Amino acid sequence: METSLQQQNIQITPVAEEIPFYLPVGNECTLFETAYRRQLPLLLKGPTGCGKTRFVAHMAARLGRPLFTVSCHDDLTAADLTGRYLLKGGETVWVDGPLTRAMREGGICYLDEIVEARKDVTVVLHPLTDDRRILPLERTGETLRAPDEFMLVISYNPGYQNILKSLKPSTRQRFVSLSFDFPPGEVEVEIVANESGLARERCIPLINLATRLRTLKGIDLEEVVSTRLLVYCAILMEEGLDPLQAAQITLVEPLCDETDVKEGLLELIRATYG
Amino acid sequence: METSLQQQNIQITPVAEEIPFYLPVGNECTLFETAYRRQLPLLLKGPTGCGKTRFVAHMAARLGRPLFTVSCHDDLTAADLTGRYLLKGGETVWVDGPLTRAMREGGICYLDEIVEARKDVTVVLHPLTDDRRILPLERTGETLRAPDEFMLVISYNPGYQNILKSLKPSTRQRFVSLSFDFPPGEVEVEIVANESGLARERCIPLINLATRLRTLKGIDLEEVVSTRLLVYCAILMEEGLDPLQAAQITLVEPLCDETDVKEGLLELIRATYG
Amino acid sequence: METSLQQQNIQITPVAEEIPFYLPVGNECTLFETAYRRQLPLLLKGPTGCGKTRFVAHMAARLGRPLFTVSCHDDLTAADLTGRYLLKGGETVWVDGPLTRAMREGGICYLDEIVEARKDVTVVLHPLTDDRRILPLERTGETLRAPDEFMLVISYNPGYQNILKSLKPSTRQRFVSLSFDFPPGEVEVEIVANESGLARERCIPLINLATRLRTLKGIDLEEVVSTRLLVYCAILMEEGLDPLQAAQITLVEPLCDETDVKEGLLELIRATYG
Amino acid sequence: METSLQQQNIQITPVAEEIPFYLPVGNECTLFETAYRRQLPLLLKGPTGCGKTRFVAHMAARLGRPLFTVSCHDDLTAADLTGRYLLKGGETVWVDGPLTRAMREGGICYLDEIVEARKDVTVVLHPLTDDRRILPLERTGETLRAPDEFMLVISYNPGYQNILKSLKPSTRQRFVSLSFDFPPGEVEVEIVANESGLARERCIPLINLATRLRTLKGIDLEEVVSTRLLVYCAILMEEGLDPLQAAQITLVEPLCDETDVKEGLLELIRATYG
Amino acid sequence: METSLQQQNIQITPVAEEIPFYLPVGNECTLFETAYRRQLPLLLKGPTGCGKTRFVAHMAARLGRPLFTVSCHDDLTAADLTGRYLLKGGETVWVDGPLTRAMREGGICYLDEIVEARKDVTVVLHPLTDDRRILPLERTGETLRAPDEFMLVISYNPGYQNILKSLKPSTRQRFVSLSFDFPPGEVEVEIVANESGLARERCIPLINLATRLRTLKGIDLEEVVSTRLLVYCAILMEEGLDPLQAAQITLVEPLCDETDVKEGLLELIRATYG
Amino acid sequence: METSLQQQNIQITPVAEEIPFYLPVGNECTLFETAYRRQLPLLLKGPTGCGKTRFVAHMAARLGRPLFTVSCHDDLTAADLTGRYLLKGGETVWVDGPLTRAMREGGICYLDEIVEARKDVTVVLHPLTDDRRILPLERTGETLRAPDEFMLVISYNPGYQNILKSLKPSTRQRFVSLSFDFPPGEVEVEIVANESGLARERCIPLINLATRLRTLKGIDLEEVVSTRLLVYCAILMEEGLDPLQAAQITLVEPLCDETDVKEGLLELIRATYG
Repeated sequence: METSLQQQNIQITPVAEEIPFYLPVGNECTLFETAYRRQLPLLLKGPTGCGKTRFVAHMAARLGRPLFTVSCHDDLTAADLTGRYLLKGGETVWVDGPLTRAMREGGICYLDEIVEARKDVTVVLHPLTDDRRILPLERTGETLRAPDEFMLVISYNPGYQNILKSLKPSTRQRFVSLSFDFPPGEVEVEIVANESGLARERCIPLINLATRLRTLKGIDLEEVVSTRLLVYCAILMEEGLDPLQAAQITLVEPLCDETDVKEGLLELIRATYG
Repeated sequence: METSLQQQNIQITPVAEEIPFYLPVGNECTLFETAYRRQLPLLLKGPTGCGKTRFVAHMAARLGRPLFTVSCHDDLTAADLTGRYLLKGGETVWVDGPLTRAMREGGICYLDEIVEARKDVTVVLHPLTDDRRILPLERTGETLRAPDEFMLVISYNPGYQNILKSLKPSTRQRFVSLSFDFPPGEVEVEIVANESGLARERCIPLINLATRLRTLKGIDLEEVVSTRLLVYCAILMEEGLDPLQAAQITLVEPLCDETDVKEGLLELIRATYG
Repeated sequence: METSLQQQNIQITPVAEEIPFYLPVGNECTLFETAYRRQLPLLLKGPTGCGKTRFVAHMAARLGRPLFTVSCHDDLTAADLTGRYLLKGGETVWVDGPLTRAMREGGICYLDEIVEARKDVTVVLHPLTDDRRILPLERTGETLRAPDEFMLVISYNPGYQNILKSLKPSTRQRFVSLSFDFPPGEVEVEIVANESGLARERCIPLINLATRLRTLKGIDLEEVVSTRLLVYCAILMEEGLDPLQAAQITLVEPLCDETDVKEGLLELIRATYG
Repeated sequence: METSLQQQNIQITPVAEEIPFYLPVGNECTLFETAYRRQLPLLLKGPTGCGKTRFVAHMAARLGRPLFTVSCHDDLTAADLTGRYLLKGGETVWVDGPLTRAMREGGICYLDEIVEARKDVTVVLHPLTDDRRILPLERTGETLRAPDEFMLVISYNPGYQNILKSLKPSTRQRFVSLSFDFPPGEVEVEIVANESGLARERCIPLINLATRLRTLKGIDLEEVVSTRLLVYCAILMEEGLDPLQAAQITLVEPLCDETDVKEGLLELIRATYG
Repeated sequence: METSLQQQNIQITPVAEEIPFYLPVGNECTLFETAYRRQLPLLLKGPTGCGKTRFVAHMAARLGRPLFTVSCHDDLTAADLTGRYLLKGGETVWVDGPLTRAMREGGICYLDEIVEARKDVTVVLHPLTDDRRILPLERTGETLRAPDEFMLVISYNPGYQNILKSLKPSTRQRFVSLSFDFPPGEVEVEIVANESGLARERCIPLINLATRLRTLKGIDLEEVVSTRLLVYCAILMEEGLDPLQAAQITLVEPLCDETDVKEGLLELIRATYG
Repeated sequence: METSLQQQNIQITPVAEEIPFYLPVGNECTLFETAYRRQLPLLLKGPTGCGKTRFVAHMAARLGRPLFTVSCHDDLTAADLTGRYLLKGGETVWVDGPLTRAMREGGICYLDEIVEARKDVTVVLHPLTDDRRILPLERTGETLRAPDEFMLVISYNPGYQNILKSLKPSTRQRFVSLSFDFPPGEVEVEIVANESGLARERCIPLINLATRLRTLKGIDLEEVVSTRLLVYCAILMEEGLDPLQAAQITLVEPLCDETDVKEGLLELIRATYG
């Protein structure tokens, strides 16, 4: 019964009244809409903090569909998605999981970092991602057929994949796949200014610095600085902190621990704020 | 009790009213029928998305038998196939699994990606796949004898096998085995046109491109492009998307993450749609 | 409680009314009878599909003893053999396992592929396989003493043994051990004709082919073609299938996936049926 | 139910009446206050015993917020932080975990040695550490929105990180990050004198010795001597123990077992106390 | 609850009315009696089937003490030895394990193949094997003090030890240790004749053969032929079997699977019985 | 519930009426008393059987405190130390663990071989071993503050440490640490004579032999002979056993299995007793 008492990391957003802010980079919105219209499942690939989650929230609101977001992790099982019987007041009650709810309510189900989930999860997705579009619920005796409004979106960060954790080709082959990256400079300036409150003209050198940091050669980083960290940095600068220190604790320390690597990043930062 | 509350990935199809579309490549339909008539178990080998599941659905409908499909995964145990006691309303009730149901109802049981299942599953199959054709249900005290109409079909993708996950020779040796591959060009054109709605003449260059992509030398891909992905691509083209972009997000991104490999595939695509 | 609800793979055969067909190769029947008379436990070693299971069924019927067959697997524990308490209708009831039943009823207990079982299983066998011949049932407070009619038979395939899965020498040293192999040509012709219905004269070239396939040099196969597969092949030929194709899907595909290896086998087959 | 009976290592401190002693080294107090005001999550990095825990206790008291401290370990799961249903007197009662309590009460939640926790813990933090600042409690049907007073602080020791245990970049990228080290000499003298009761002038050579020990070349130590161990040493000296022996059992034996390494450290100590 | 329902492999022998046959090789009986009198725990080391178990049974009967034998295995835990609470008829009842019973009744507890047990077992033995001679039963609130008649004997086969499975030095250092080997020729002739019923003069060449087999150079066997297997061989010869075949299925097949090794052993056997 | 029924290896000694015999080697008693007075936790390091456990028992009796000893092992969890809810007669009752009891009763808690315990155990110790000296019991809602009489002592054998099992530096750094070794010759003669009853003059050559055995070069032993084994040897000699044989079964066999190593040790023994 243990797993039935575990807290899962699932967010359910009813049809949004307001469309979350999202600045398109290319025609990703059209592609999403086409996949939605033709009922094709979608895979988003891209680095941490580049805006995948925001993009899905934006599209769900635009299409007027409720959004069911699941952050996948090592212990996430198929039953966490589809549902299970729980003991409530001595009674055994079936409780739909977020995937089942998305199907019943015609919503968008978004499985974030799908490669982290347990293997049986990806298998549940198979009958949902071929022409049958069904979700069999053996326990309740139902076989749900996806309504036209249902859409399945998954994502992962290709930089994380390894032998132990990767999406099986037989699963990947079932998704139309979009590759994401950080937004181009002018778009990122807009985003950072909008989220931090820092003046646009002070954001420009920060984004320029980010571009240089992201393309720095000879530095061994697992990930480069994300748009989110730039927003943090801009907030601290807007609060009056010394820009050099703000950059150090938002653009350097969150990314690495090694003194050499830190020094390499700081050198570039000093060229802007030193 | 946990596993009894897990959602399994099982589809049960009653005797189909309509026979699903399937274009035979060779005499695989005759071979299936012979095995069915002489009560020999069948193993289908072949890559992802080449049509194995559709073939089984087609044959089950043709033979007028209900179909019990199980997508195997890491946590699938013998009891998931044979059945177990569940607590329902304070009572302990035996619930047949899909394998048991297929035997009682004289249906076809199809275990997809059998190498993914746990080892005790394959052992359950042994007394079913020799001349005894029996399924002992220790819990209920029954020993089921397979009716003439029962047939067991399993499948796997030889490209996935490894030391940890492979079918034991003592299991494999119990199955008549058919090797599948992607359909020949003219058949695949027919299928893609039929499933996508894209005009036949626009499908021909797409299938030609697929053939070139599948035989590309010097490219390290876990799997090559499947018929399903070609259908996706054709759908997006039929929706008016730029063919180059449609091909990129259906024939390249779903197959690989590495920039070099993507570029190699894109080069070939540009030769057709550039 | 979970394991108490699992389906185990156990077959219980009451004293057979008819003796199953078995063609002896040497004096293995005499050896079995001597071991039975002097109450020595027996180990059968040999490849998949060479007739070990049929031999035990034949001898049990000949000796007029019920047969308890257990196909061992990764999750088989000592309690699966000896018995356990189950909850039935709110009551806790002791249920004998197949080993305990064989002892109480004076039957033959056959543990097939013993190396697959968990380690605690083999330890249960120790007091049964020395001069004490006892099975202590701690839970019920009994110590069963084997009646003269009880016999323990185990088997494994030496080709499968590895460091992780092998019978401990301290267990092996407790068994008189017979080594099995495929039957000699003339015997195998008899068996295949008898089981398939194919005319004896058409079986002869098939068995000759099998001999050549089994001794083929320079081919890396985990197992060679079994008598069972020859029966499958004969059935398909008897059904009117092209012999070359019948041989391919019964003598080649069930044994290997690699194109090179398949081609090596097919070459030999074409020499007979090409 | 087992984990619901396990003892977790969690300390809950109500709003402190007295502010714990903390000597700032730089402007870390201002940085903490800014992050608190702008609702940015904070990561503290630094070696064992350098004062991270004391710093957080100090800041929580200064800001007048209750503090919820969790020492993370291998078995710490998401439910330990968020809460679970417990059986109490036959009733199933929801019990908030420390993270949930910190959110409801507007407190500071401090997860010490976060890299030791299980992976699903870090995932729970994600929706809390982006602009949504929410904690969805699927079990109770609530989605908590963090009040302005809530703050999340995590810490780890960079010297411990390895391939198996490290904070995923996608988690790290969500935190403003401060790097801690041992305090400068004059500050450490103050701390040791204050905590041990040893006269200030006797603390000075001890801290000088510590500086030399920490920068000793050619010695392979997992960690260098901490401020805490200096306090221990000062206490024993204040109790009248021979300074050489006091140093040996507090500055050498707690750090290493190898004779060579010990001798290297002792040599330096003898130069001060020999 | 599962483990409380598992069958453990434990034999309890009340004070024997007859002393089991045992032919001493040296002064091992005196050593055993001295250790018993001075309450020192005993470790027996030696190969499979050399008579360790029989020796302990013999000594227990001679000393007039009941014997509690436990065959250790991978899943044997401390609670299997000390006891646990079981649910019986709705009541929770404490049930002593064999170690606790041996202490209460002043018997000899024999843990066979101790290296196979789980690590927590050996730790239970520590307070029993120093001068305290106590067994604390936390659950029942008792601390048992061993009566003078209690003795602990453990055994293992040094040929099996490896890095994963070995007795910790801190455990071994608590036992007086005797090394066993196969009995000398004249003693073994006596034993085999006595157990098999084969005439003494026919046993002599068999034992001579065994000596040659055990010292054969250049043969890679995990274990050499045991006295038990010689008894099996003598039984089959006494039953009229061809000695060469009797030797093959008792002295060769139980020890190895490799054709080369078998041939090496058979060559020596043919020199005697060929 | 399983772990709540497991037997733990815990000994509780009320305030001793008699002080156990202990011969100090240096000023370790003073160091222990100082740590006790100033409430510093203590770590004892040293080889098996050198007297650490006896030392702690001696000091606890001298200080008039009850002693709670826990022998740590692989399955020891935090709840085993702090306590848990148990089902007793249908009621759920909280039962203090030994650490909690030591705190409530102002006793000494001794965790022997701490590196064997599971990781969550060491984390429980952290808030107990800084200036807070608290033990939070989340389940009961209590936070225990250690009384002045409470002391925590842990031990391990540095010779056993490895990558998988070692005390984290962040834990070690919390303990004043004493290094133990075997007692010097004249002290050991006294101990062995006292414990065995063997005349003092017969103990002297035995201890001289032990010194030579412990410093033997070129011999690969995991541990050297302990004082306990010398006591065993002296007991057997006092019982009239041949000294050479007594030495062999107490000073050689308990330490190694390899013939070469045994011979090396025996050579030295023969020089004394040959």
